[in-house]
Amino acid sequence: MPIVSDTIEIRVRYSEVDSFGYLHHARYFVFFEMGRTELLRRAGIAYRDMESRGLFYVVASLQCRYRAPGRYDDVLMLTTRTDRFTRVRVDHGYELRRGETLLAEASSTLVLVGRDGRPTTLPEDLYQVLGGEAEGRG
Amino acid sequence: MPIVSDTIEIRVRYSEVDSFGYLHHARYFVFFEMGRTELLRRAGIAYRDMESRGLFYVVASLQCRYRAPGRYDDVLMLTTRTDRFTRVRVDHGYELRRGETLLAEASSTLVLVGRDGRPTTLPEDLYQVLGGEAEGRG
Amino acid sequence: MPIVSDTIEIRVRYSEVDSFGYLHHARYFVFFEMGRTELLRRAGIAYRDMESRGLFYVVASLQCRYRAPGRYDDVLMLTTRTDRFTRVRVDHGYELRRGETLLAEASSTLVLVGRDGRPTTLPEDLYQVLGGEAEGRG
Amino acid sequence: MPIVSDTIEIRVRYSEVDSFGYLHHARYFVFFEMGRTELLRRAGIAYRDMESRGLFYVVASLQCRYRAPGRYDDVLMLTTRTDRFTRVRVDHGYELRRGETLLAEASSTLVLVGRDGRPTTLPEDLYQVLGGEAEGRG
Repeated sequence: MPIVSDTIEIRVRYSEVDSFGYLHHARYFVFFEMGRTELLRRAGIAYRDMESRGLFYVVASLQCRYRAPGRYDDVLMLTTRTDRFTRVRVDHGYELRRGETLLAEASSTLVLVGRDGRPTTLPEDLYQVLGGEAEGRG
Repeated sequence: MPIVSDTIEIRVRYSEVDSFGYLHHARYFVFFEMGRTELLRRAGIAYRDMESRGLFYVVASLQCRYRAPGRYDDVLMLTTRTDRFTRVRVDHGYELRRGETLLAEASSTLVLVGRDGRPTTLPEDLYQVLGGEAEGRG
Repeated sequence: MPIVSDTIEIRVRYSEVDSFGYLHHARYFVFFEMGRTELLRRAGIAYRDMESRGLFYVVASLQCRYRAPGRYDDVLMLTTRTDRFTRVRVDHGYELRRGETLLAEASSTLVLVGRDGRPTTLPEDLYQVLGGEAEGRG
Repeated sequence: MPIVSDTIEIRVRYSEVDSFGYLHHARYFVFFEMGRTELLRRAGIAYRDMESRGLFYVVASLQCRYRAPGRYDDVLMLTTRTDRFTRVRVDHGYELRRGETLLAEASSTLVLVGRDGRPTTLPEDLYQVLGGEAEGRG
């Protein structure tokens, strides 16, 4: 992928904070999903166009380490990077920060499936737009 | 912990399913949190009573592997177990199933903090109720 | 509808409570949706079977008055009733209580649409199961 | 209130869309809450500063009419306006659009409470910043 990393800004919503005043741990994964969407968009692809072609990325595994709490109204910076990319799966890494403070580090593996939910292969045009090497070398 | 494992039933809500028809991957962590709450309750402790004593468990790390999708209106069985338990942290494991089908396996580490968000130690009474060994042996 | 009212029990999850300690106002609508699903099920119909026939209820309007706050771990009773039912729309009323305390009163109008999102009419078999009067009288 | 209206842009997240592909009806209220937060910020007040002074707005009633569906990745414009403002309550109106298309119209009443959850009165400094008329005239 030529676009190997992208950073977006996210403001923490009131409804995302728990009764202890912390950004709820499950919400981080919604942010990471936003990071993936924007990384794909910067590569020139809207995920909803992939879906309309019958191509869906589903999450196969996730890991997250929480370093410091996020709070309501915090402006956070999320950096999403592509660590590994093939025709059938993609691995991402994530770092969520508030200024210099690291809030969380995470990684995920997604696999590509078709409308039937079965693993499928990225068509050559999308594979190349996303930076995969051309057939015969990849 | 004498209560090392507990299983609860959860029905997937309409609002928890994504546009592909799958239980959204971030919702699993809300289920795991419900599992922890019920495991604690079976040991005789309501988490909200811990909170009113100024004791809060915050998530330090999470891992999840997704094996098969959940869908709207599925009745799932979540088994939550305590893998390790000390005065300052607790490790849990989770298995989410629909009938015989394993949907997800996960694990988490929680650390105990006080109202100020700093790590603290479980008072002796709670530690023993939760099955920790008595002082001098533990 | 012969099944004009149904009451379900809902325990408030940790992730549903805001930083003030109150059940977040938007979550009530997720509960009301659960109430509708269960009311339909008691009439003998699973909403996901309707969806697989290409029939979808979409929300056209909602109103809610909040009387008292819900809190984490509260066990609430939600009563959902059908106030008006035709082949193209259904009006519901809701009362959410904790013991004797009324937390919220609400109402909604749903309209039936097909896969294309356009208004459609309930097939005669479903209409009668749901308690509509037979053709010629309804 | 001198700042009687404000418009913000919101992109619909994947996790906010239901299995029919529509922005879930309960999510609109999270957007309206974001609209209120930004309207307050434009008036020079961060809601979390109000909270740290022990002042909380809680929702007393909500109404919403849904005109057209929102979808994943839509860029929506939310206009939030103040319709009525006193020391103890505030009424807002909302219009959510995608380009020229009106998706939803809504209104809400919020009441001001203290840490104990009981109704309270806005201090004079905040009341005037928010555009209330000076004591003796208001």
